[in-house]
Amino acid sequence: MHPTDQGVCSVSAQAATSVLDYMQTVGQQARQASTRLRAATTAEKNAALHAIAEALLADQPALLAANGRDLAAGRQNGLSEALLDRLALTPERIQAMVDGLHQVATLQDPVGQIDNMEFLPSGIQRGQMRVPLGVVGIIYESRPNVTIDATALCLKSGNAAILRGGKEAIHSNQALALAVQKGLQQAGLPAEAVQIINTTDRAAVGALITMPEYVDVIVPRGGKGLIERIANDARVPVIKHLDGICHVYVDAAADPAKAVAIAFNAKTRRYGVCNAMETLLVHAEATGVLTELAPLLVEQGVELRGCARTQALLDCVAASEEDWSTEYLAPILSIRIVDSADEAVAHINHYGSQHTDAIVTESYTLARRFLTEVDSSSVMVNASTAFADGAEYGLGAEIGISTDKIHARGPVGLIGLTSQKYIVFGDGHIRA
Amino acid sequence: MHPTDQGVCSVSAQAATSVLDYMQTVGQQARQASTRLRAATTAEKNAALHAIAEALLADQPALLAANGRDLAAGRQNGLSEALLDRLALTPERIQAMVDGLHQVATLQDPVGQIDNMEFLPSGIQRGQMRVPLGVVGIIYESRPNVTIDATALCLKSGNAAILRGGKEAIHSNQALALAVQKGLQQAGLPAEAVQIINTTDRAAVGALITMPEYVDVIVPRGGKGLIERIANDARVPVIKHLDGICHVYVDAAADPAKAVAIAFNAKTRRYGVCNAMETLLVHAEATGVLTELAPLLVEQGVELRGCARTQALLDCVAASEEDWSTEYLAPILSIRIVDSADEAVAHINHYGSQHTDAIVTESYTLARRFLTEVDSSSVMVNASTAFADGAEYGLGAEIGISTDKIHARGPVGLIGLTSQKYIVFGDGHIRA
Repeated sequence: MHPTDQGVCSVSAQAATSVLDYMQTVGQQARQASTRLRAATTAEKNAALHAIAEALLADQPALLAANGRDLAAGRQNGLSEALLDRLALTPERIQAMVDGLHQVATLQDPVGQIDNMEFLPSGIQRGQMRVPLGVVGIIYESRPNVTIDATALCLKSGNAAILRGGKEAIHSNQALALAVQKGLQQAGLPAEAVQIINTTDRAAVGALITMPEYVDVIVPRGGKGLIERIANDARVPVIKHLDGICHVYVDAAADPAKAVAIAFNAKTRRYGVCNAMETLLVHAEATGVLTELAPLLVEQGVELRGCARTQALLDCVAASEEDWSTEYLAPILSIRIVDSADEAVAHINHYGSQHTDAIVTESYTLARRFLTEVDSSSVMVNASTAFADGAEYGLGAEIGISTDKIHARGPVGLIGLTSQKYIVFGDGHIRA
Repeated sequence: MHPTDQGVCSVSAQAATSVLDYMQTVGQQARQASTRLRAATTAEKNAALHAIAEALLADQPALLAANGRDLAAGRQNGLSEALLDRLALTPERIQAMVDGLHQVATLQDPVGQIDNMEFLPSGIQRGQMRVPLGVVGIIYESRPNVTIDATALCLKSGNAAILRGGKEAIHSNQALALAVQKGLQQAGLPAEAVQIINTTDRAAVGALITMPEYVDVIVPRGGKGLIERIANDARVPVIKHLDGICHVYVDAAADPAKAVAIAFNAKTRRYGVCNAMETLLVHAEATGVLTELAPLLVEQGVELRGCARTQALLDCVAASEEDWSTEYLAPILSIRIVDSADEAVAHINHYGSQHTDAIVTESYTLARRFLTEVDSSSVMVNASTAFADGAEYGLGAEIGISTDKIHARGPVGLIGLTSQKYIVFGDGHIRA
């Protein structure tokens, strides 16, 4: 099955008798392609990544034209400037996609890695081999760069991908799909290894998340409400990223200079990101940090909302009960003064979202306790929560950040798109 | 909260205004207990395992009496002999539970293990720490020994457990719960670390699998239909064990003696287990193995169902299309002659259940290809499928065998009940 010059996927949504039939076909094709991808060599996968990069450069005029249609429609439909900016492609952004593809090609291939190979008392030799999950479904916003990021990560990890981008980016994604398929075919891999849903019908999402026979895992991106709805309706495992209500706890034993620097960085580096600090907890004996930090934050335009004890110390509005469990994603910070590390840990485990939390302390014992007792996907000592990021963690690239507890926690890179199967070597061994 | 002398859980189902309220309380208590368990030391957890073992021995008369009530009710309700046997407790079986508890205490504690601790370009040091999942819900048959197995594994891995056994075992499980709680309290751990559902109302299961706020993962045990229903209705991740349609492929390059031994063992060692071979695939050039093996199987009372080419060779009934995707769990074997390893792999990936599949071959190249191309939780070379088992794999104990692809594949032991969170050490590091 080859894509035609006109069609983007090998099946056109228009031609299919219904969206559900179309999705069935997409699913079957993905499952079929995953068989080939599972056994693809690292060299084949890297060749495809480079070929896709070249195709993107070759197709640049078509990509910009298609994106222009999306932008025009977006403007007509009153899309905000922020959303239009995320939707826009430029030669620089296309170059960034190209660079990203080449960079993923340089990453170590996790597939086939064998761990724990041991001889057991029966004489068999048992190990665990890292293998692709199979078919990964990704549901994301109207950001064309995600189409290429997701393509690169799924391909390198040996997974077939079904990508469903936001409806505002449909023309851009169709143009990108053509380049992706050219690259795949040039490298001798099936064009169906990466399929981009060719319809904006929302029923396609409903179908995608309820086909466990064809889809092994869903990675949704977007707002918390959307992800919760998808997780709720899915019949396929979902790697979820819900909210990031991140804390910095400034301990009594904190180095004040480190505390000020970390809290300021965690709050102000970027406001709209999930690893930004939303609540600052300060030990009653460390309030000097607070009086030093507050004017710096206010100068940056950060609104402070404090507990009663904070209000007694600073000029700020009162934090409500709701504030403690709010992900502001904005220049707002809630502040609470606590009497002990225990109280801070209890606050974090109660109000937090198990995303990223940091302690600032010089106490060896408290640092060890904080690491154990705070149940979050990233727990830090004397470092800014802003480091919770696939690139900063050295993953090379990330498909998302998981706030789930099974399979993968925190930034999810290539390893998170694989699993381990057992392998056994014998020499005619039978079990007694 | 302490259990009374009479009550088994700290909340009695009868006293609760409804099963749902009761389950909410159980869930809240489990979540609360999980906070303590997460930080419990290995010594504390081992002390609890030993104390529970002692309490079981001390309570033996009460356990046997409670079990006697279950057996009497079971007989009255026409339970089969096989089910009554699984339900029955004896002094020997209680001793086996006690031995199991002591044995889990000897296993390495996975919690707190730190991997991949590396300095990154920013100067932060990043690693992954193994942590408990939190609260594990286990739904199982009327086998009292599972109550203790599950208790031991959840406790050692630092998880709070909510156990829901079959209704026929309710009195036995209540008696076991008393011993478990005595042991937990003696070791200074919360009695609510292991809660055994105190009602046979099926609404309790419905509640258990839809409380993501209190339960982190569900491990259902039982028939495929039951597990599928639970997975379908759950709002919590489920570690599933569906069917085991296991294959042995005898390659043209097989050592005939190994092939006969492995196929015979894989089929006849035990019929009712998930790792038993259900379909034998034989290369057309290796049919000598078949003519040697068939009489041995028939002598054991195994019914053979063959493809047309097999029927031309052996006296057997015809295998239908349905046979290829049937888990017999019985002395029945379907046999197919294939012309290539490719055909065998395609058959396995199409009709199998991704449980356990083996190749018998002396070909290095084919062995490597089979390992890569067969997408099952255990893939073996020259070994019997009967080895797919937690104990044989050296896990010490298993909570089940996962046929899922995310989180854990194959036998699930202590590691499968944990996850990894990121930890970051800095020295006042902030992100640029």
